[in-house]
Amino acid sequence: MLTGQKIDFSYHDKNYSGIYISSNKNTVTIKLDSGYNITINKESFTLIKEYNFEEKKNNIPPPGNSKCGENGICILTTGGTIGSSVDYKTGAVKPVKDISYLYNYVPNIKNFSLYHENIDNILSENVNADKWVMFAKKAKEAMKKGNSVIIFHGTDTMQYSSSALSFMFEEQTAPIIFTGSQRSSDRPSSDAFLNIEGSVHFAAMDYGEVGIAMHTGTSDNSISLYRATRTRKMHTSRRNAFISIDEPELAVYSNGKTIIEREIRKRSDNIILKDKLDKNIGLIYFYPGMAEEDFYNLSYNKKAVIIMGTGLGHVSKGITGVIKKLSKETVFFMASQCIYGNVNMNVYSTGRELMEAGVISLKDMLAETAMAKAMYLSANYPDKFTDLMVKNLRGEIENTIK
Amino acid sequence: MLTGQKIDFSYHDKNYSGIYISSNKNTVTIKLDSGYNITINKESFTLIKEYNFEEKKNNIPPPGNSKCGENGICILTTGGTIGSSVDYKTGAVKPVKDISYLYNYVPNIKNFSLYHENIDNILSENVNADKWVMFAKKAKEAMKKGNSVIIFHGTDTMQYSSSALSFMFEEQTAPIIFTGSQRSSDRPSSDAFLNIEGSVHFAAMDYGEVGIAMHTGTSDNSISLYRATRTRKMHTSRRNAFISIDEPELAVYSNGKTIIEREIRKRSDNIILKDKLDKNIGLIYFYPGMAEEDFYNLSYNKKAVIIMGTGLGHVSKGITGVIKKLSKETVFFMASQCIYGNVNMNVYSTGRELMEAGVISLKDMLAETAMAKAMYLSANYPDKFTDLMVKNLRGEIENTIK
Repeated sequence: MLTGQKIDFSYHDKNYSGIYISSNKNTVTIKLDSGYNITINKESFTLIKEYNFEEKKNNIPPPGNSKCGENGICILTTGGTIGSSVDYKTGAVKPVKDISYLYNYVPNIKNFSLYHENIDNILSENVNADKWVMFAKKAKEAMKKGNSVIIFHGTDTMQYSSSALSFMFEEQTAPIIFTGSQRSSDRPSSDAFLNIEGSVHFAAMDYGEVGIAMHTGTSDNSISLYRATRTRKMHTSRRNAFISIDEPELAVYSNGKTIIEREIRKRSDNIILKDKLDKNIGLIYFYPGMAEEDFYNLSYNKKAVIIMGTGLGHVSKGITGVIKKLSKETVFFMASQCIYGNVNMNVYSTGRELMEAGVISLKDMLAETAMAKAMYLSANYPDKFTDLMVKNLRGEIENTIK
Repeated sequence: MLTGQKIDFSYHDKNYSGIYISSNKNTVTIKLDSGYNITINKESFTLIKEYNFEEKKNNIPPPGNSKCGENGICILTTGGTIGSSVDYKTGAVKPVKDISYLYNYVPNIKNFSLYHENIDNILSENVNADKWVMFAKKAKEAMKKGNSVIIFHGTDTMQYSSSALSFMFEEQTAPIIFTGSQRSSDRPSSDAFLNIEGSVHFAAMDYGEVGIAMHTGTSDNSISLYRATRTRKMHTSRRNAFISIDEPELAVYSNGKTIIEREIRKRSDNIILKDKLDKNIGLIYFYPGMAEEDFYNLSYNKKAVIIMGTGLGHVSKGITGVIKKLSKETVFFMASQCIYGNVNMNVYSTGRELMEAGVISLKDMLAETAMAKAMYLSANYPDKFTDLMVKNLRGEIENTIK
């Protein structure tokens, strides 16, 4: 039996069918047709039939450097856990190049034309602005051929990458869905299969935004679609690590059905991609006693700095002094390290001093989203930079898309 | 009528009593005996009786530079919203020096001997290690006179300050309860009164830790006691902004009753205060594309750096290179910007490279708590610094107090 192969088997005199996943000395693990995994004792397991791989495949091209075709759903793989496997010698997870075997055990996607193109092979902590530009160009290419786009991406920085693409695509003819997994897809407990299944269904929607599709809860039965610019990874390891901050999810997929829960932007007739990003943007997490020198060094010569201040958006008096000195050269924006809630610098005298020093409130915008937005605006709209930073462009501020 | 004064009044021909809070041209706001505030039209309001301030007071000393007495509960005020009032000209909130009027409208605290000592007058974004040492010494003085301690503190950095005191007090004869408020106590909707009421009740418990007492939910009816080292401000403005991360609350106070929900450390027979802190500790929030130079400048010459990495505890390859260069001089610790969940650098090849470069996992310890802990350990236990950082001392790591 090969991983991903469909089998019929009996267990305690009852017949079942499912997808073979893995086995060890004593047990065998199978993904049942219901979507659940079982791990059973080899003594109680009898193989009835092994199905040929080919006959269950979608129109997935063979392993290798495949290219996306036309009018389907193009899966661009960039690496990350969803495209990784466990190195059983060391126990560590390493990126793997070919993930086409995955499709064999994702149910409910037979009616979709799926393509697969491997565009990168990195763990997502290593992404940067150059990668975002490359991902965006590849997504544009796929859309030009009539495809929707799914991007397999490491979960570590998915919120940053998806926000960046969200701003870079001013108009898009199809959804761009980021998905990933918290456990690699060669593990029986992997969340990858259902994340892929949900992503495929979301990719078929009349939806013209960049979204993130990940588990709704800890159970392996429902996938949520989140707006990229409002989403944050809030747990290091849980399946439902991704949370839409201060905003409900856009849609939910479960058991073959998609329910759209909020107003979403529809597909556009055109693709407008701005493929320039300004790398000279900083992000600073303030903490009590932070040295003025450190804040100065981090901000000096930056085009803009996103401050993660305390509470409603505060830093110490000393840091306010540094901001005053640098604010002719650098634009300072304020987000909150509380993550939830609005920045409001009108409430306290220190907040008002910060505003007088030129610091601009980002209201409820997430700091990570703000960094991506600043990179996009500074490169493409330098004259309207500060005005557009506080205007709602992709649902990133004040909770609504206008 | 004065703010805080008890009154009897009639409203639509029914009689009520409550505490006068504020009024404007058309309305008057009163805190009812039930704890709820009402704002009513002046035309429907008739004053029946104003009570003398003095007859409702506890044994609170008069306004001014009062000192804590013996064998009671000593409230040390440091500033923050709970000790602030609205400047109605500008709309901003400013610190005020005398907060003794507050006690007049906190119910259910008549049986406690309350003292009040004003030890500082700052908004909490300005606290630093010197302030923490001063707060700790004042708390020790109060405990030596047989008192429990309540510290009124701004909510912005309460998690940092309370964690610092938590480590500095190796043994304590009484609880030290930090509390504050999200809205100033001269506002009708203030959460200050119930926070104070709950804190007083928690301060009377057989509890020998540093805790945070703030609203359990958005309703004004229940106060939770959280372990300082596990708590984080997770909303900029809500009453229940404080959340105990990956751990339930220790106790809940509601309607005059306290329910202890988890095992807590009891009061000790001795006070052991380590009043030295090493200020040379950094906290760095990693983000994709972060310049190696910035990371280098922030870390250079630091005794230790707490990294807020992505996911299970990662940074980019370039930053890993910088860490390798500096790790002979600086100790690097890894926390996660996900906030919830454990750091685990064994899972991915990049995590393992970080460990080889000398980075130490902080498991589920919060980054802000880790900063305070490093300041305490580096100053007081330099020889055992790294060993003690990953050992559970105050319930800060691996969810249990040993």
